Amino acid sequence: MFKHIGIVTKTATPAVREALLSVVGVLNARGLEIFVDLPTNMNPVPGHYHLASDGDLPGDCDLVISLGGDGTLLQAASMIFPHDVPLVGVNLGRLGFLADFTRSNITSGLDAVLDGRYLSEERAVLGCNIVRDNAVIASENGLNDVVVQKWNTARLITLDTYLDGKFLHSQRADGMIVSTPTGSTAYALSGGGPILDPSIDALVLVPICPHTLTNRPIVVSNTALIEIHVDTEREEKSRVTCDGNSVQELLPGDHVRVFQQEQSITLLHPADHDHYATLRAKLHWGRDPC
Amino acid sequence: MFKHIGIVTKTATPAVREALLSVVGVLNARGLEIFVDLPTNMNPVPGHYHLASDGDLPGDCDLVISLGGDGTLLQAASMIFPHDVPLVGVNLGRLGFLADFTRSNITSGLDAVLDGRYLSEERAVLGCNIVRDNAVIASENGLNDVVVQKWNTARLITLDTYLDGKFLHSQRADGMIVSTPTGSTAYALSGGGPILDPSIDALVLVPICPHTLTNRPIVVSNTALIEIHVDTEREEKSRVTCDGNSVQELLPGDHVRVFQQEQSITLLHPADHDHYATLRAKLHWGRDPC
Amino acid sequence: MFKHIGIVTKTATPAVREALLSVVGVLNARGLEIFVDLPTNMNPVPGHYHLASDGDLPGDCDLVISLGGDGTLLQAASMIFPHDVPLVGVNLGRLGFLADFTRSNITSGLDAVLDGRYLSEERAVLGCNIVRDNAVIASENGLNDVVVQKWNTARLITLDTYLDGKFLHSQRADGMIVSTPTGSTAYALSGGGPILDPSIDALVLVPICPHTLTNRPIVVSNTALIEIHVDTEREEKSRVTCDGNSVQELLPGDHVRVFQQEQSITLLHPADHDHYATLRAKLHWGRDPC
Amino acid sequence: MFKHIGIVTKTATPAVREALLSVVGVLNARGLEIFVDLPTNMNPVPGHYHLASDGDLPGDCDLVISLGGDGTLLQAASMIFPHDVPLVGVNLGRLGFLADFTRSNITSGLDAVLDGRYLSEERAVLGCNIVRDNAVIASENGLNDVVVQKWNTARLITLDTYLDGKFLHSQRADGMIVSTPTGSTAYALSGGGPILDPSIDALVLVPICPHTLTNRPIVVSNTALIEIHVDTEREEKSRVTCDGNSVQELLPGDHVRVFQQEQSITLLHPADHDHYATLRAKLHWGRDPC
Repeated sequence: MFKHIGIVTKTATPAVREALLSVVGVLNARGLEIFVDLPTNMNPVPGHYHLASDGDLPGDCDLVISLGGDGTLLQAASMIFPHDVPLVGVNLGRLGFLADFTRSNITSGLDAVLDGRYLSEERAVLGCNIVRDNAVIASENGLNDVVVQKWNTARLITLDTYLDGKFLHSQRADGMIVSTPTGSTAYALSGGGPILDPSIDALVLVPICPHTLTNRPIVVSNTALIEIHVDTEREEKSRVTCDGNSVQELLPGDHVRVFQQEQSITLLHPADHDHYATLRAKLHWGRDPC
Repeated sequence: MFKHIGIVTKTATPAVREALLSVVGVLNARGLEIFVDLPTNMNPVPGHYHLASDGDLPGDCDLVISLGGDGTLLQAASMIFPHDVPLVGVNLGRLGFLADFTRSNITSGLDAVLDGRYLSEERAVLGCNIVRDNAVIASENGLNDVVVQKWNTARLITLDTYLDGKFLHSQRADGMIVSTPTGSTAYALSGGGPILDPSIDALVLVPICPHTLTNRPIVVSNTALIEIHVDTEREEKSRVTCDGNSVQELLPGDHVRVFQQEQSITLLHPADHDHYATLRAKLHWGRDPC
Repeated sequence: MFKHIGIVTKTATPAVREALLSVVGVLNARGLEIFVDLPTNMNPVPGHYHLASDGDLPGDCDLVISLGGDGTLLQAASMIFPHDVPLVGVNLGRLGFLADFTRSNITSGLDAVLDGRYLSEERAVLGCNIVRDNAVIASENGLNDVVVQKWNTARLITLDTYLDGKFLHSQRADGMIVSTPTGSTAYALSGGGPILDPSIDALVLVPICPHTLTNRPIVVSNTALIEIHVDTEREEKSRVTCDGNSVQELLPGDHVRVFQQEQSITLLHPADHDHYATLRAKLHWGRDPC
Repeated sequence: MFKHIGIVTKTATPAVREALLSVVGVLNARGLEIFVDLPTNMNPVPGHYHLASDGDLPGDCDLVISLGGDGTLLQAASMIFPHDVPLVGVNLGRLGFLADFTRSNITSGLDAVLDGRYLSEERAVLGCNIVRDNAVIASENGLNDVVVQKWNTARLITLDTYLDGKFLHSQRADGMIVSTPTGSTAYALSGGGPILDPSIDALVLVPICPHTLTNRPIVVSNTALIEIHVDTEREEKSRVTCDGNSVQELLPGDHVRVFQQEQSITLLHPADHDHYATLRAKLHWGRDPC
């Protein structure tokens, strides 16, 4: 069972502090070892735990709890990846797509997880390499998406995309999102992409404001190597971002390679978790069935 | 190799007649046995062949050639399914998504196929059962899609959808398209659905004009059992169609079960077939890469 | 001030009956003359009023109250048009776009209207003529929309559209919606159309599931004469509907002329009416401003 | 008639040089006074003309010719506005939405204009003021659009929008486009906006990748004062752009006011100009009518 527990937080709000107190209480009562990644400006809460140094969790954590929302969970995922450490998301704000334990059931929910009553689910992770002059100059991962987007400009950029080395299309757009099923309810959905069931072995390419109106989202195999060339003579007008974080500015001639990592992220859900019930609530999908 | 060849046509146009002459010529020169499904109002062309009776091809055909367009190929597929007979589509009109041999290369293209030079591709087929009072009252298959749609009314219909027995959503809409990757460039694309790479193991549910604006296309596993209940008190206001053909009018309480068939359809393409080159041409996807 | 009041209802529900009692009470207390269009299967409520015969209201009504929802208000509008009788919509179900008096403020709201405290707004009405062999064979009006749509078929129809006699485009689609600003939050919105502010002098053409993906909604002047030709050899595969009611089946060669009527419909709103507050609530448009 | 002619160019390509030669030839033959805004790196062509200094055309020009494409025409419009000088666009690349004289008819087309045979059309122009601490700190105009967009960040921005002082909505998005009918076929169309007939008195607000999926384009009166507040604590994460040119970085508390200018831009078209014929060609809108 779980012995070394990491706790990830992001912002020093009263709600986070209160949740942290509850979680530390539950874990201390079981005598488990705790490592807390505390927001820089938050005073420590009472309890027995180690402070994680510099936003790093020890590699021997066997469970990580994120306190905040989907954004905090994405951050926790990025801290533990590629270690295979299961992740529990406690949602302290509005309903989250990913963080599905709530403030009200935080104690009972955590007890259930620690007792082994939970639903475990693998979520795919994207990797990306930025290649310049045949060398990888930057790499990053994303649980939601890798995005090549215009940056510091109001003009469209030109993107040439290849699937497994074969030319797919060239388009002028604000950018292109490569999304996992997890990310399909995030930025990709705002861009007009479809929802991908978390169980399917697929990725989706969603153009952002494409100039050619027939450029539609394309769902491809999760084994595909996606290569995007930004075809521009102007420097530093596009950038690669992962899960909303800037990774690398692109120069003419740079290539971005996007692919699904072999390693995935394990999410632990409440035992009665229902993915589409969450979507129905978040997206206001009408009434119950008859 | 191929010995018994079926030929499917749909309309009695000069182009079909001319293509039929060419194809019969090539096949006769090789001494192959031919069965032709002739349009009812077309005079037979010269050559040695059997006339297929009543739109049926003999079960021992080992290759079927469709002459016309994507619609004729869909019809040919429906004639041979579930027999595992490879299908060659000759396109006599504008570029087709499916029928990718052309009028200009019909002779050399067919020779290549008969000599064994081609690209073979499996395309998923949907099955559907309409269930009334616990009995299946109608069944049909579709290479493109199964659609539950309003019929004979200008009012929305209410659709409750289940995935593998779990409630997905209830929506008021003009209908819902369940599409294969093949169908994702047909009606589903007009309805706002994404393009699915033919290689992925997925289906897509595309709502038609949904009243709730957040109802988006959902890509699900090809192993999913999709069940659609039309929730209405009014009779005969919705219908199930497959590949654009009416299958069954629905009464209150009827269920429609949609699932991928185990058996697929085998398409034969020219050896240099490039799926996305076809899409680029059909969808006017801008220029060549740099 | 208002002296002869019409009341329009649609369905015999307890909520309608209760609202009718309240409204008759308020009007009787003021000694006003009342004409009630009662649902066929509803027992009369107590009070002093005339029963409107055959769904007709007398032409000398100077105020009409609809009890139900947006659908009932559309029906009331169709009953009074082209008479210039102001219309009050009481909404008995979920929030309506049009009927914005509510069950809870029905008495005070009606008193305010009868005392002259209200916001008056003109809403444009569409007319349509179906022309066969140079003669108008059918005409109808719509407060929301005129739609030319496929009927009794799963196949697309081909629509040629002209603006003021000039060719606009030819498209294959499930149909085309011509919508007023009022209708822009109804069926046209489901079809992907924009929202039109009720104050603008414009109509919007929204294609339904267009085969050519670049066919987008087009906003045109409200003075435009829109003419739609259904280009088909097959009979009775398309139909004209107004506000969701079937008007006329189309034969090959028929033309549909759509234009804004000179006469509009006058809606009376509560004095503090805020159109976009209604939209924010109906469409879940996030939080209040900061 | 036209006596003082300005010529605007943007890039030093052989096509521009060749067109410039033709135009100078036609104008010199008529003895008209010419002012040329030459690309900085282009050698002067032979002929009689003045070089416009520093990208400025003299205020007494009574006709301006742009040589290039829609982008050059936008630049010419910005140079002459708010002077009421008619504008002729010669398109040297692919078909333009705005510049509709072509390389092949440049001489005859220009002769026709100079002889008074043309179609004159007024196009609305947007103005915007950026307000900080109750003072206007920057102003700009746009023939296409004013856009408030995220800048230098991968995160959504929060936009509160007001119409004539009344709250419209608050949304999280990549940005918001306010577009004229002219701009409705430019960036606004890529963002999912409708096409606005150039004749209608309306503007359209198009959200870019809105987080709330029900945020749709809204068409409002051209008399509306649109005010956008970027609600953020983070500095310099959003910017105002006009016709694709950066205008001003926004700080927390800044307001952007967008409104239609009283003065418009006059475009001169060939006498047989057909706006929708251009759209049909640019957007591949199917075949001719029957």
